[in-house]
Amino acid sequence: MKRIAILGSTGSIGENALDVIRSLGNGFRVVALSTNTNTDLLYRQVKNFHPESVCVRDVSASKELKNRLNTKVRLFTGDEGLREMLQRIKVDEIVLAISGASALGPLLEAIDSGIDVALANKESMVMAGPIIMEKAKNKKVKIMPVDSELSAIWQCLENQEKGRLKSIYLTASGGPLRRHNFLRSQNVSVKQVLRHPRWKMGRKITVDSATLMNKGLEVLETMFLFNIDLDKIKVLIHPEAIIHSMVEFIDGVILAQLSVTDMRIPIQYALSYPQRMPSRLSGLDFHALKELNFEKPKFKRFPCLQLAYRAAKEKGTSPCVLNAANEVCVEEFLRQRLDFMSIPKVVKTVLDKHTNKPCPNLKDIQEADVWARRQAQDTITKLN
Amino acid sequence: MKRIAILGSTGSIGENALDVIRSLGNGFRVVALSTNTNTDLLYRQVKNFHPESVCVRDVSASKELKNRLNTKVRLFTGDEGLREMLQRIKVDEIVLAISGASALGPLLEAIDSGIDVALANKESMVMAGPIIMEKAKNKKVKIMPVDSELSAIWQCLENQEKGRLKSIYLTASGGPLRRHNFLRSQNVSVKQVLRHPRWKMGRKITVDSATLMNKGLEVLETMFLFNIDLDKIKVLIHPEAIIHSMVEFIDGVILAQLSVTDMRIPIQYALSYPQRMPSRLSGLDFHALKELNFEKPKFKRFPCLQLAYRAAKEKGTSPCVLNAANEVCVEEFLRQRLDFMSIPKVVKTVLDKHTNKPCPNLKDIQEADVWARRQAQDTITKLN
Repeated sequence: MKRIAILGSTGSIGENALDVIRSLGNGFRVVALSTNTNTDLLYRQVKNFHPESVCVRDVSASKELKNRLNTKVRLFTGDEGLREMLQRIKVDEIVLAISGASALGPLLEAIDSGIDVALANKESMVMAGPIIMEKAKNKKVKIMPVDSELSAIWQCLENQEKGRLKSIYLTASGGPLRRHNFLRSQNVSVKQVLRHPRWKMGRKITVDSATLMNKGLEVLETMFLFNIDLDKIKVLIHPEAIIHSMVEFIDGVILAQLSVTDMRIPIQYALSYPQRMPSRLSGLDFHALKELNFEKPKFKRFPCLQLAYRAAKEKGTSPCVLNAANEVCVEEFLRQRLDFMSIPKVVKTVLDKHTNKPCPNLKDIQEADVWARRQAQDTITKLN
Repeated sequence: MKRIAILGSTGSIGENALDVIRSLGNGFRVVALSTNTNTDLLYRQVKNFHPESVCVRDVSASKELKNRLNTKVRLFTGDEGLREMLQRIKVDEIVLAISGASALGPLLEAIDSGIDVALANKESMVMAGPIIMEKAKNKKVKIMPVDSELSAIWQCLENQEKGRLKSIYLTASGGPLRRHNFLRSQNVSVKQVLRHPRWKMGRKITVDSATLMNKGLEVLETMFLFNIDLDKIKVLIHPEAIIHSMVEFIDGVILAQLSVTDMRIPIQYALSYPQRMPSRLSGLDFHALKELNFEKPKFKRFPCLQLAYRAAKEKGTSPCVLNAANEVCVEEFLRQRLDFMSIPKVVKTVLDKHTNKPCPNLKDIQEADVWARRQAQDTITKLN
């Protein structure tokens, strides 16, 4: 019996993870859940999965839930409560599905508690990859990626000698705006951006898919998670999003991982690892698929990808600054307070102003995060 | 230092294997070579690679070579000589690149001598797969496939639990006549057939590629070599021949192996296994490639594939009979004594006449082989 906690259970990945656990049956038990504010959905999840503990990070939102919960379920609140819950629960694996930078704290606490993590959050790894991986190594904690691309790389590298790696092909569907000519038009609506052709995902990651910042963050995540040189990581546009990524070895062999575009596949792998378990999803149909296409990414059209490579090259606090500025921009874009085309401009302005700190500690990173958010807000204010 | 013997060194695979060994440098040494009749090329190979022993299977062809060879090189002749050579040489791995059914004897002798085999010959496995695999298991001998498709499956299955396998996609370029409408025209010339669009290979295998019998033999080889149920093995037409095969697991994940279409890639893997070593070949260029296509094979157009599935279902002596009849047909086609379209007809006639013997021993197989060849010749004589 594997005891699972899902942090951020009310988001898209969280809901999918619960669906996977339901389908896997008896070998898995949900023991803890957490949400930021969505107590209604959390309550329904409690009714269905009977966890021992839940946490609501937003203290005011937690109050309403308290009265509805059965006394058997222990309720924790706030960041402090989440920390306490992580220390108290007996759990084999955490699915970390909190979105954005706020996942970093819980991730580090999970590692400190010696719990293996299925990591669906890429921002934390982008911000503090070297610190996370060092801590995980010391604590003998496995960090298992849930992102479809990272999961593909993980599966292709599994049991291969890392010294024999030549390059990684990180595939990108190109997102909802692959065919859009950004250089000509400024006005891309929130609605257009949220219409992703391949994946149903949360709003933040869908915007990141449109700017290709998502792929940029994955470049950084790949570099840190697998400890791979940046110059070995290549991005390849593959509109069908069937090949989730590929690994090339020094002997000219490429191993690729393919599946239908459904997040439940990588989520399940991270849960069932090192085993594979049956899936209810229908498999790939190559006869219906007919073809797979590839294109070189146009860096000029997708400046966010270029900025991510720059931050990856600089390392230090730059990746954290890139991520923080981008998070602010995406939020402001979704609130219709920032043009789509201004996202890379604001991120670049903040990166340009930043004095990179090599080999940062956690405090340096937290400070850089706060600094970059303020800078991004200031830059956006000046634009308007 | 890995000591290598190449049997059938003067054929296409043999030459490629020598090229790979030359490029791999110091860790590999060619200690024995063999040819059927091509003593000129064998002599040149001896000058370049300085093996300790060579064998010429055709006794009359061996005489001319004897005078030219340095006394340091030990010359064996005939099938008996090959057997003796295999018993005497100190060797870590044999590349078995003899073509056709005549590879079966040397393969069994290599296994008896406890030598690991890089198997480039599929006919032997088709004829006597269960016997070969049983013997290899008892002798703790590794049989490593050199065929690009089988090597792909091997690499994708490596370190995976076989019980988690859902299906194998054996890819087929479709060969030189993929677009040809066999149902309408009878006349396909030898020249047309030998013009393969993707692979440079020997004549026998190129004809088999055109009839798709090659893919049928690979279905049988896959079934025996990996001990996989026939109903899990699917053939998928993939004209670019970049994905060399794929393995699908019960969790919906597919692992694929890709590379340029160059036999030196799977040959090198079988030589360097379990390591991967650098290759001089240029890698895949996805930007130039642009797309990969897939089609369902049209069984009506390629009756040889259908016949191979039938033999695979029957097991026993049927696969051996299929292979023997096909070998005779291909030879007669290359001599322009049999129509291309008559190949499947003759094979079917022989299979129909055959009384299958389940769980055959080696003698049963040898008898079935002889019987099928005679039947095929008789059938062809009657046609003309």
